[in-house]
Amino acid sequence: MNTFGRNFRSTTFGESHGKAVGVVVDGCPPGVALAEADIQPYLDRRRPGKSPLESGRQEADRVEILSGTFEGKTTGAPIALVVSNRDVRSGDYDALRDVFRPGHADYTWQAKYGLRDHRGGGRSSGRETLARVAAGAVAIRCLAPYGISIRGKVVEIHGATEPAAMEEEIIAARDAGDSVGGIVEVRAVGCPAGLGDPVFGKLDAAIAGAMMGIGAVKGVEIGEGFAAARLFGSEMNDPIGEAGFASNHAGGVLGGISTGQEIVVRLAVKPTPSIRRVQQTIDIAGEEQEISVGGRHDPCIAPRIVPVAECMLALVIMDAMLEQAKYRGLGATG
Amino acid sequence: MNTFGRNFRSTTFGESHGKAVGVVVDGCPPGVALAEADIQPYLDRRRPGKSPLESGRQEADRVEILSGTFEGKTTGAPIALVVSNRDVRSGDYDALRDVFRPGHADYTWQAKYGLRDHRGGGRSSGRETLARVAAGAVAIRCLAPYGISIRGKVVEIHGATEPAAMEEEIIAARDAGDSVGGIVEVRAVGCPAGLGDPVFGKLDAAIAGAMMGIGAVKGVEIGEGFAAARLFGSEMNDPIGEAGFASNHAGGVLGGISTGQEIVVRLAVKPTPSIRRVQQTIDIAGEEQEISVGGRHDPCIAPRIVPVAECMLALVIMDAMLEQAKYRGLGATG
Amino acid sequence: MNTFGRNFRSTTFGESHGKAVGVVVDGCPPGVALAEADIQPYLDRRRPGKSPLESGRQEADRVEILSGTFEGKTTGAPIALVVSNRDVRSGDYDALRDVFRPGHADYTWQAKYGLRDHRGGGRSSGRETLARVAAGAVAIRCLAPYGISIRGKVVEIHGATEPAAMEEEIIAARDAGDSVGGIVEVRAVGCPAGLGDPVFGKLDAAIAGAMMGIGAVKGVEIGEGFAAARLFGSEMNDPIGEAGFASNHAGGVLGGISTGQEIVVRLAVKPTPSIRRVQQTIDIAGEEQEISVGGRHDPCIAPRIVPVAECMLALVIMDAMLEQAKYRGLGATG
Amino acid sequence: MNTFGRNFRSTTFGESHGKAVGVVVDGCPPGVALAEADIQPYLDRRRPGKSPLESGRQEADRVEILSGTFEGKTTGAPIALVVSNRDVRSGDYDALRDVFRPGHADYTWQAKYGLRDHRGGGRSSGRETLARVAAGAVAIRCLAPYGISIRGKVVEIHGATEPAAMEEEIIAARDAGDSVGGIVEVRAVGCPAGLGDPVFGKLDAAIAGAMMGIGAVKGVEIGEGFAAARLFGSEMNDPIGEAGFASNHAGGVLGGISTGQEIVVRLAVKPTPSIRRVQQTIDIAGEEQEISVGGRHDPCIAPRIVPVAECMLALVIMDAMLEQAKYRGLGATG
Repeated sequence: MNTFGRNFRSTTFGESHGKAVGVVVDGCPPGVALAEADIQPYLDRRRPGKSPLESGRQEADRVEILSGTFEGKTTGAPIALVVSNRDVRSGDYDALRDVFRPGHADYTWQAKYGLRDHRGGGRSSGRETLARVAAGAVAIRCLAPYGISIRGKVVEIHGATEPAAMEEEIIAARDAGDSVGGIVEVRAVGCPAGLGDPVFGKLDAAIAGAMMGIGAVKGVEIGEGFAAARLFGSEMNDPIGEAGFASNHAGGVLGGISTGQEIVVRLAVKPTPSIRRVQQTIDIAGEEQEISVGGRHDPCIAPRIVPVAECMLALVIMDAMLEQAKYRGLGATG
Repeated sequence: MNTFGRNFRSTTFGESHGKAVGVVVDGCPPGVALAEADIQPYLDRRRPGKSPLESGRQEADRVEILSGTFEGKTTGAPIALVVSNRDVRSGDYDALRDVFRPGHADYTWQAKYGLRDHRGGGRSSGRETLARVAAGAVAIRCLAPYGISIRGKVVEIHGATEPAAMEEEIIAARDAGDSVGGIVEVRAVGCPAGLGDPVFGKLDAAIAGAMMGIGAVKGVEIGEGFAAARLFGSEMNDPIGEAGFASNHAGGVLGGISTGQEIVVRLAVKPTPSIRRVQQTIDIAGEEQEISVGGRHDPCIAPRIVPVAECMLALVIMDAMLEQAKYRGLGATG
Repeated sequence: MNTFGRNFRSTTFGESHGKAVGVVVDGCPPGVALAEADIQPYLDRRRPGKSPLESGRQEADRVEILSGTFEGKTTGAPIALVVSNRDVRSGDYDALRDVFRPGHADYTWQAKYGLRDHRGGGRSSGRETLARVAAGAVAIRCLAPYGISIRGKVVEIHGATEPAAMEEEIIAARDAGDSVGGIVEVRAVGCPAGLGDPVFGKLDAAIAGAMMGIGAVKGVEIGEGFAAARLFGSEMNDPIGEAGFASNHAGGVLGGISTGQEIVVRLAVKPTPSIRRVQQTIDIAGEEQEISVGGRHDPCIAPRIVPVAECMLALVIMDAMLEQAKYRGLGATG
Repeated sequence: MNTFGRNFRSTTFGESHGKAVGVVVDGCPPGVALAEADIQPYLDRRRPGKSPLESGRQEADRVEILSGTFEGKTTGAPIALVVSNRDVRSGDYDALRDVFRPGHADYTWQAKYGLRDHRGGGRSSGRETLARVAAGAVAIRCLAPYGISIRGKVVEIHGATEPAAMEEEIIAARDAGDSVGGIVEVRAVGCPAGLGDPVFGKLDAAIAGAMMGIGAVKGVEIGEGFAAARLFGSEMNDPIGEAGFASNHAGGVLGGISTGQEIVVRLAVKPTPSIRRVQQTIDIAGEEQEISVGGRHDPCIAPRIVPVAECMLALVIMDAMLEQAKYRGLGATG
């Protein structure tokens, strides 16, 4: 299943070391001003090689719109966005052809499909998130006229919560041939009340699915999240006054529907599984092997997950906006 | 959206104080032995009024199979399961008709739909989970022949992790007219490797969406979950040997696909929002009101979420089993 | 797959000789006045036993709304509609337990599922259409405030096109222990232009799928239909003037999208496969058998397909109305 | 909605005069040998400009596989197929920018979206079918190892049924600045019994939706089709003997499920709406205009619909094969 969303549907394709990575965005409203320049900045933020703490893979990641716009506006037709792969050093991966890297999808994909494109993780590579970011950028563009904006940041790395300390943790891990995890927070401002569909289309359920679907994410929480388990009801409940909610422990969602407050989501990101330190694993024949994963890898993936998480949140919200608009667009129901 | 699942689809219906609550299970394989007696025990576990710490609402919650079986076996046709509502004291809720209970869906449903069935929360009531449990019981029945079983438990209440201490926390909260949150853990044993569909159908993403879609759940984590954010890669990665994985920090899922190990999920459950303690809110006219929520409520909802979480996990796994079976059933692809 | 529709979703359940037949309608807008009395007339029109030319099965077919309304209006929650089966003479079918009736689904269901509820066709019985009619009646109720109405009729029976001649054909067939086919026409008036979603969600494609999905239907055509194959373009094209289209050869759909004109659909209905005349078949062991199908059967099913076709058309149009409303409800897209 | 299928999902994109037309095929089983050379012949058959009776647009229509294969085999990842547009004479269409061509989607798209890419029909162009053919070619490749093959042909043009007479009808229409319709027949050989999902996923319903979703198709019939309306049940029913069905009036589908016989489908194709003869229409301001549609158009589109119809049938059957494989792949259900 490579399609995300019910109303605003993004179908991604492409492998790390194939010809291209891309996405088809279907269900975008007509009449939205959209050009490559609206999408490129998000890809640039996601792009590797921007700092010494990130993977050294050099990719221009230039997006091209193949369809769905006419004279600078969306037409309602599907929008195909494609990014070519260029800096493809598949040779780096020859040694990994028949070995399962711990913490990666190698073993499970082999178990599922009986074969796999091992080069750079193939389809399970983080490079696939490029397509999500491109689609999310379209959603962000669609949401802007409604005053909805989304912003994420890293709030914790390996236990550290101050920027300088976080950077030190990454450097120390890198120098040790190791990696570290972190926590990313994403917030959406300006969402109207009423987004989300009760029972199985809850806004928070959609968010949780979207976020846990990002590689390396092992936990998702909304508002107080796990801290809610340690609160009294009288602490957790957000009182309501004439001016609106007096607090936002709920994180902007009640009963699966947006309250109109800020939507607050946090993700737990595991340490990058690719590390230089020697690990124990097996090969495709089941024989034990020691492995040290070279190549170009981020010692902490959390910073690069920020734009991906923002874009996934945008996709969820845009989808909910369209769902909600159905009733409004229908008008009086008599 | 009241349907859950792509291959094993459960469509629930019913309100807390309507005539009935039920579910139609579509996509169940033919030939599975199934009777009311296979489903009833799960409803009994979920049923309120079993202990002094739970809601006093008395419901027999007898399930009836209306369709989809013939001579004791499923036929491949949709299975309709219905439970009548009996102990409906709608009068308890008259005072709440025009007032929004803090922490509940009252405000957001009104914002979304412009009207609502206020009696006992209507469709957003926890009573809707009865339908999920009925559907989940069918899934559990289907999974049994494959050696897959699921078991959940409460692992923390308001910070306490020992059974006696947890019970004390609930009693103290109840006596104070308050409520407390907790953490529920659910585990699935016996799943084959290969379940889950990469990119947007990841097994852990489906689990996260399913769990966050349970009312009162504010966080979901798999394996190490949020603790992964504080680990090194060398600690988090599960080494693989000839005998299989040497540890299970991943919680049974890598790259969105099951590893064949135990699947381990934890949910953060917020304190029951219905509390006797006076809270600040507004009514439908926007005027401020003080509210004390009477009626019959659990001071901690975590224990009653256990069977719901088990059943949702069963639904996700059964859905993934059918998805995976497509390729196997097709045989050699040449 | 027992669910129809993307936005207005109807999930049907129930077998001919089971406990009940029903449907869950999900996605109905809130605030629509709806009571059993709005649905019952459609079931009454579909009901067997109204004339000597129809099956003699006596069923009250009383519909009950189990959920989704509050104080006489829909709430946005799923609407469960159930009709109990009463006049169940399963014994009539004992002789057919292991024999495949020609022209019926007996052979194919056995091939697909390996077992089947043989009583009255089980799930493949025409009685399942009762659930479609109940759902369609809700759609018709929703469409009324927009001035959309739907009406069908039998236009041909066994080649005859005049009412008296059509009745004679049915009587002659019945008396000969045989059955006859016919053609049903359904028209929708009042649809706005713009319904239907290009490429794979075309309005006419959805209509064709809906109609061919009715048992006994072997052909579907829109507007000129098969006659279009014998026309020149200059005859087929509908000229457009200031007052609108000058003709309606297209049948109200161009490029898969409604033109605002009347939507005109015709269905080819095969002769009822259940006939008294002796036919050649095999039993479950593959041995040849002669069969004469007794029981209570319509010698021509076309008249009873009329309300079913109307209701399916209503479901398609309501679904398209909601799809279209998404863009309107979103407002200016900037 | 630009996605077709539930299990074998094809998402098409691209406009007649945009940069490219393409498709993402999701759900293809892993391990299928697939190269551009498997797809190109189908595009070549669909390609315009092969005969003097077809549109003179010159396109190489070279397909490129961007993703989803590795070392010549499918991997289970989505397969992106792209064809660049080259012979784009958009200037031909400048005169049509603000005028609605009769019989085309111009008016309805404008009504739906409020704007449109008028060049060559934009997204509603027959050129979009190129993407369907590419996807269908993948399905055909997948079906081959199971002995399933599909073949279509034109069986009638403007009433003529002999090849020479059919060609004469096309020439006469072309010379008169007019166009003619026809009937296409498609047959699938080798399908196992059991394909198709009862009630709303019937095989014939899926076929009807797929075929009516091809531009210019106004009618679909299976087996006897409309002729069934003029038969007795004793003529229509296919007797079953030890050697199987004795005839195939049903066209290979009973109760929505394949019988194992040949699947026989016929489509009514309307005359090409683009004709040189002067027609009455209006422009975007609602003012009446006379129009003569120049450019490069087929005087009869039926022959070029043959490969499209074949490919759509392949998509439906492959989807049903995967659906059916779910139960088989699951094995014994106990």
